[in-house]
Amino acid sequence: MMRDFSTGSAPIALNTATLGPRASLKDAVDGCLRHGIATLSPWRDRIAATGLHAASRLIRDSGLTVAGLCRGGMFPAADAAGRKAVREDNLRALDEAATLGAGALVLVVGSLPAGSKDISAARRQVEEGIAALLEDAREFGVRLAIEPLHPVYAAERACVNTLAQALDMCDRLGGDLGIAIDAYHVWWDPDLSRQIARAGRSGRILGFHVSDWMLPTASVLNDRGMMGEGIIDLKALRGEVEAAGFAGPVEVEIFSERNWWMRPVDEILSAVVRACRTAV
Amino acid sequence: MMRDFSTGSAPIALNTATLGPRASLKDAVDGCLRHGIATLSPWRDRIAATGLHAASRLIRDSGLTVAGLCRGGMFPAADAAGRKAVREDNLRALDEAATLGAGALVLVVGSLPAGSKDISAARRQVEEGIAALLEDAREFGVRLAIEPLHPVYAAERACVNTLAQALDMCDRLGGDLGIAIDAYHVWWDPDLSRQIARAGRSGRILGFHVSDWMLPTASVLNDRGMMGEGIIDLKALRGEVEAAGFAGPVEVEIFSERNWWMRPVDEILSAVVRACRTAV
Repeated sequence: MMRDFSTGSAPIALNTATLGPRASLKDAVDGCLRHGIATLSPWRDRIAATGLHAASRLIRDSGLTVAGLCRGGMFPAADAAGRKAVREDNLRALDEAATLGAGALVLVVGSLPAGSKDISAARRQVEEGIAALLEDAREFGVRLAIEPLHPVYAAERACVNTLAQALDMCDRLGGDLGIAIDAYHVWWDPDLSRQIARAGRSGRILGFHVSDWMLPTASVLNDRGMMGEGIIDLKALRGEVEAAGFAGPVEVEIFSERNWWMRPVDEILSAVVRACRTAV
Repeated sequence: MMRDFSTGSAPIALNTATLGPRASLKDAVDGCLRHGIATLSPWRDRIAATGLHAASRLIRDSGLTVAGLCRGGMFPAADAAGRKAVREDNLRALDEAATLGAGALVLVVGSLPAGSKDISAARRQVEEGIAALLEDAREFGVRLAIEPLHPVYAAERACVNTLAQALDMCDRLGGDLGIAIDAYHVWWDPDLSRQIARAGRSGRILGFHVSDWMLPTASVLNDRGMMGEGIIDLKALRGEVEAAGFAGPVEVEIFSERNWWMRPVDEILSAVVRACRTAV
């Protein structure tokens, strides 16, 4: 039985990316409080701009829950020095996630190092990088959530591109590893329903992100739509994710350079709350 | 054992799209003859601009072989009248393919009808549309080749987005149905090697198309690279396709509005021949 969002009781997590680059962490926190949004998923640049300890205090004092910290990952590197720098950055991300009380560190895993055409090698590096980070994550009390990205980002941002691939990796590495399911990245997948059910059975769904795929799409990076504006059947997708056992908040993450990011925070958040009621 | 292309003996099929919208069918035919390219894969707009029978005569007199006609498909439609129009257009495409002596009609299958968010329904319509066309294709002596397109086109151009999905459809529909493997569309797929081998075992590989994925990509529609310019490991991919039994020509299909299409036909074709020798 799907949760009823139509009465306005949708458990929403605001991903700070939705407010665009002009909004500070404080803008996001204050906006959540004004609009009855109980959960926040910050990007690390917003935390860095505020300072980790000030950010942590700000969020704790607000009473907001932190869902996922965005992001760790970017594992493949051209050489050992590069991989060492990546690992150190991921350890810092884990420390930040723990300090903020985030349940998960979201992993955008990275892809081809400069000059490489070997995506299989990149995938092996990702798996080795995650394997090496799992014990640290346990010690920090933070779960790692692999976020498969849409195949259009396969060369530059993430070489994990389907739920099946992410779940295969989870099965091989075991432990607390999980996934974040982002509607924008996975809606097209002919194997989607089966893999969502599989993820549910193994308790691996750590996050469910929503936005919409615009038709036409002006830019695959920064032209995501508000839920309901595009062609993703978000209600059906939420139904499947909840049937698989997910009971967490619906995380709204909209990159929209030309439209939503141009608008005032309150206008964006009113639209978010309304769209979660009607289109998710 | 992979065929040796390094000596310049690569069996190349020129897809007319590679020369851009300014080049006529005659430009393409003459260019092939000048550059030692023995096979042509025309788009239907080039055929229509010349007239079917003049086009057929032109190609026959040239001695060129026709690999695939691009394209049939676009099955999903909002209503019965729309589906009827689609079927009639596909029958015309089969007639054109037969008249031109093309071995295959390449299917870009289409996706969501206007206003629809139901990609599963679109997929069912595609399968029904192909099923209804199979007997006609047999009568025309033309094989149907499903071309899975990159998931970035899933909303607008094709809701068949992986080799696995296309091959599942082939298995269900049986008969002469096959697939076209386009490097640009499939290079990212973590399941690629397994599915190429599967396609080979069932004799379904009817075409192998190459171009390259640019980094960065200015437009996912019309910014494909010449082979070697981007990040696809085309040699490895050709090795897998040939190990799976494919022995046909390598079809070069490059949509490049800002770069290659601006250049003279001979410059494009020299680059094609060179790139096939060095990068495929």
